[in-house]
Amino acid sequence: MLETDFKYIIDTFFTLFSMVLIIFMVPGFAMLEAGLVRTKNVSSVLTVNTMIYAVASMAFLLLGYSLAFGSWENSSMSIWAAFLFQMAFVGKTVNIMSGGVSERVKIIPLMLFTVVMGGVIYPLIVNITWGADFLNGTFLDINMYDLAGSTVIHSTGGWALLAAILIMGPRKGRYKDGKIMVIPASNIPLVVLGALLLWIGWFGFNGGSVGSISSVENADSVAKTIMNTNTAGLAGAIIAGIIMYVRYKLLDITMILNGALGGLVAITAGPDLYDIYTPIAIGAIGGALVVFAIPIFDALKLDDPVGALSVHLINGIWGTLAVGIFVDNVSIIDQLKGIVVVALFAFVSSYIVLFIINKLVAFRANDDVQLEGLDVEEVGVEAYPEFKRAI
Amino acid sequence: MLETDFKYIIDTFFTLFSMVLIIFMVPGFAMLEAGLVRTKNVSSVLTVNTMIYAVASMAFLLLGYSLAFGSWENSSMSIWAAFLFQMAFVGKTVNIMSGGVSERVKIIPLMLFTVVMGGVIYPLIVNITWGADFLNGTFLDINMYDLAGSTVIHSTGGWALLAAILIMGPRKGRYKDGKIMVIPASNIPLVVLGALLLWIGWFGFNGGSVGSISSVENADSVAKTIMNTNTAGLAGAIIAGIIMYVRYKLLDITMILNGALGGLVAITAGPDLYDIYTPIAIGAIGGALVVFAIPIFDALKLDDPVGALSVHLINGIWGTLAVGIFVDNVSIIDQLKGIVVVALFAFVSSYIVLFIINKLVAFRANDDVQLEGLDVEEVGVEAYPEFKRAI
Amino acid sequence: MLETDFKYIIDTFFTLFSMVLIIFMVPGFAMLEAGLVRTKNVSSVLTVNTMIYAVASMAFLLLGYSLAFGSWENSSMSIWAAFLFQMAFVGKTVNIMSGGVSERVKIIPLMLFTVVMGGVIYPLIVNITWGADFLNGTFLDINMYDLAGSTVIHSTGGWALLAAILIMGPRKGRYKDGKIMVIPASNIPLVVLGALLLWIGWFGFNGGSVGSISSVENADSVAKTIMNTNTAGLAGAIIAGIIMYVRYKLLDITMILNGALGGLVAITAGPDLYDIYTPIAIGAIGGALVVFAIPIFDALKLDDPVGALSVHLINGIWGTLAVGIFVDNVSIIDQLKGIVVVALFAFVSSYIVLFIINKLVAFRANDDVQLEGLDVEEVGVEAYPEFKRAI
Repeated sequence: MLETDFKYIIDTFFTLFSMVLIIFMVPGFAMLEAGLVRTKNVSSVLTVNTMIYAVASMAFLLLGYSLAFGSWENSSMSIWAAFLFQMAFVGKTVNIMSGGVSERVKIIPLMLFTVVMGGVIYPLIVNITWGADFLNGTFLDINMYDLAGSTVIHSTGGWALLAAILIMGPRKGRYKDGKIMVIPASNIPLVVLGALLLWIGWFGFNGGSVGSISSVENADSVAKTIMNTNTAGLAGAIIAGIIMYVRYKLLDITMILNGALGGLVAITAGPDLYDIYTPIAIGAIGGALVVFAIPIFDALKLDDPVGALSVHLINGIWGTLAVGIFVDNVSIIDQLKGIVVVALFAFVSSYIVLFIINKLVAFRANDDVQLEGLDVEEVGVEAYPEFKRAI
Repeated sequence: MLETDFKYIIDTFFTLFSMVLIIFMVPGFAMLEAGLVRTKNVSSVLTVNTMIYAVASMAFLLLGYSLAFGSWENSSMSIWAAFLFQMAFVGKTVNIMSGGVSERVKIIPLMLFTVVMGGVIYPLIVNITWGADFLNGTFLDINMYDLAGSTVIHSTGGWALLAAILIMGPRKGRYKDGKIMVIPASNIPLVVLGALLLWIGWFGFNGGSVGSISSVENADSVAKTIMNTNTAGLAGAIIAGIIMYVRYKLLDITMILNGALGGLVAITAGPDLYDIYTPIAIGAIGGALVVFAIPIFDALKLDDPVGALSVHLINGIWGTLAVGIFVDNVSIIDQLKGIVVVALFAFVSSYIVLFIINKLVAFRANDDVQLEGLDVEEVGVEAYPEFKRAI
Repeated sequence: MLETDFKYIIDTFFTLFSMVLIIFMVPGFAMLEAGLVRTKNVSSVLTVNTMIYAVASMAFLLLGYSLAFGSWENSSMSIWAAFLFQMAFVGKTVNIMSGGVSERVKIIPLMLFTVVMGGVIYPLIVNITWGADFLNGTFLDINMYDLAGSTVIHSTGGWALLAAILIMGPRKGRYKDGKIMVIPASNIPLVVLGALLLWIGWFGFNGGSVGSISSVENADSVAKTIMNTNTAGLAGAIIAGIIMYVRYKLLDITMILNGALGGLVAITAGPDLYDIYTPIAIGAIGGALVVFAIPIFDALKLDDPVGALSVHLINGIWGTLAVGIFVDNVSIIDQLKGIVVVALFAFVSSYIVLFIINKLVAFRANDDVQLEGLDVEEVGVEAYPEFKRAI
């Protein structure tokens, strides 16, 4: 057997394995968000998550992939595996955004945005970072190191979310008479299940982003990437737990999980570049950032029911900077430039598209619908019709 | 290393990977059905799903595999991996059937049927399609192309379900004074989780059915199969969503998921044969068929709480025909013949076996038990004992 | 390509695949235990499960792995993959223990114990069984065959649990006026989901423990291991179902699942050594042992809400003995010696550490906290705040 054939076969298999792990993030996000919102909005959140996967992936198939990579040729593995791996990413940017505007976003305009995000905005960001690079040679050319998307995926989703929150405003009743009303998560087992499925999906996300396992060096790189990814998650969870305990004598499980996710986002830019201890620092800082950022966003009245700005935007930035800080031959200026260019493009383009769609079909469910819950008006299916509600 | 050894190792690994994905369909079906039935029948449905996996797999180990394939020799991979992959399929046919008679079927007679289905009926269908082919040379010989079982698995389960519904009748109170009483699903997050786990399992189901990943051609075929499988699911979900929105201004999530599953069933006969756009058509038609078939079965008073007839039987047939329609060198006559022969055998044999078992131990829970819920009488464990019921 | 390179690549990939399956046991244990306890303790159990994964894995990274294996060198695959696979095991021993003291254990002292278990106790047990073997040449040297840890993982966790139950006592109100008060599981779908995820994780646990898939012999061994593992689970579920039906005319799903888990624990010592029928006997005995042991532990007032002593301790012992009974060239005396040495070390060291921690920070939540539920006091987050409670 030719060595090139061996590599083609093994890398195709490995990429399919990675892609399947990432697809576990679809139920992962769905369960996480279904658990974090109130029961009256659970069906709506679940519909949103399911439809985002369907619509964003379809838009990427029909348009986005070509826009990002220029052609369906040239791959050291099966092109269909390469496509599937990239397709598995695309919905994530919208998931991040949709989670943060839960409990007031209407599904139809969100789907219109999903088409544009999955078909154009995200593919263009991939184009200038991982893809065909149409900015190559211009002063905007990006040389950022971002293995699996701290910036490309997580910050992009975070910037789109920030634009969305500015346009849609907070949930009805969230900020009242200058006070922040606590709205508790409705189903903690789903939150835990969802976060752990995301964690597992991350192994495919980051491991698969190495792009090949078919040499001894690459096999080491993949394994180290998965190890470091996991370590950052561990550290994020532990530090969030410690902070919560020190401050409140309580081990708030939603905060612990958000800490873990923050650590996972932070490691995503360079999990292959660190020794095995650095991810402890990166993940711990990531987890701490989440715990401290969540109340700050609330103080700014940026209402984000699932903490997505803190987890994905803040840590996307932190993780990308961390590569510049901890890795010798990566320039922190290049990292910063990448962060800023993507930020500008993602925020401005998302804001414009959201603004236009909002004029056509308002994103925000009106107060009565929010009060009754979006499930009745948008989905027609209650999440738990038989369980008597206490609140 | 010998090339045959390389292939043996890689294909064993790949088949185990595929098998594991299919096993995720066990919690997949269990969660889907537990979410779709009323809380008073949830433990019963979960017991059924768990025991079907145990009993059908054991019957296949002790009898079915030999009946289907004639011998435990000759495999281009580890025979134990080949067995596991086939074994992972067998419970699915009964899952399809049991889901559709939920909320009135008693567990013990269902287990008796599971023994016969897993040990004899399904293995014989495999024998004449994918296996040793004892009909070879007779006028009943089947030349249908059915890569992963649109007919062999899904229609078979669907025909068994039709026989079961005819014998067991509808749930108490479902059709009253000529009206169809709506019985809402009790737990939508479980429905979504289950459907998404099924979706992921399908990658193993269809991808693994290619049978080998150990050449460049086969690696392409596996990757394309998984890509096309996914695309059909996307299209089925989207079309179901569009139809529901156009008709009711509601994005009914259970219908969207059934649309996705319909698309996945429909693509299953030939995912390796299509270009990457044809699955959009096949899946979209599959999703639409589900949406339109569900009320028709209800009009016929064929009470199927999970929509299994529409998802599995109708789309099993559609998907098998689609290969004949869309692929040049596949004869639509061969496809039709396969559909009809399997239909006759699956329906008649299931009906006879169900009829006999029904004489020995009645399948149908009596009206009082249905009113109280099957969990008390059959399982002795309530699903959610602490949650106050509103209905 | 060099054959050693091929093996390095394939075994790294295979070990990562196995490790990912084992990580599914984290949500597996979490969902199983969240479903088995009362709603007022669900967030607490989920926090415990999440933090055990984080803390035990971190302790293993910083200390345990070196203690177990002596060095981070020498591996026929990527050392990072080898580490991850071993790391995936470590939390399980604490999971087994924590589950059995649910509904009264406080999280902070449990985390202190987790550090010692993950950093020292479990690594030392691995050292003398699978690892560097510092007892080699002494009269305590162990020659037990225990492929994937019937003794090393499951009995170890079970002995630690027994020590913990002795120190913490039963839940408030569990044994009253000489009677055993039944405390029903609060969420059966979660129990089923959790148990099935554990089942799937077991394929990675046992299959990966073969250590290599990169030769024809090893590929066969891995596939047979997974097949036999599954078969024992099937048999355990079926026998538990039969016993429950014969005794009570009820198919108690929690007992069926515990029977399956018992069968899985029992096969874990030697799944690669048996023919394909012996696992039916081993699993069936394992499942029966669970059903009969649960009331015995209750009669002894060893309060174990999830049945972990019966599933893991009893079947860990049975499974290890079974290798001596069913496999010709394995000495039952060697097996017994391994069981006894590990038992002594695990029980005594756990007891001492638990005793010391208990003096510093009491493990047992006081009666008022138990009455109110641990979630309020320990986590500050209710699991299902919107659902009205009936009990």
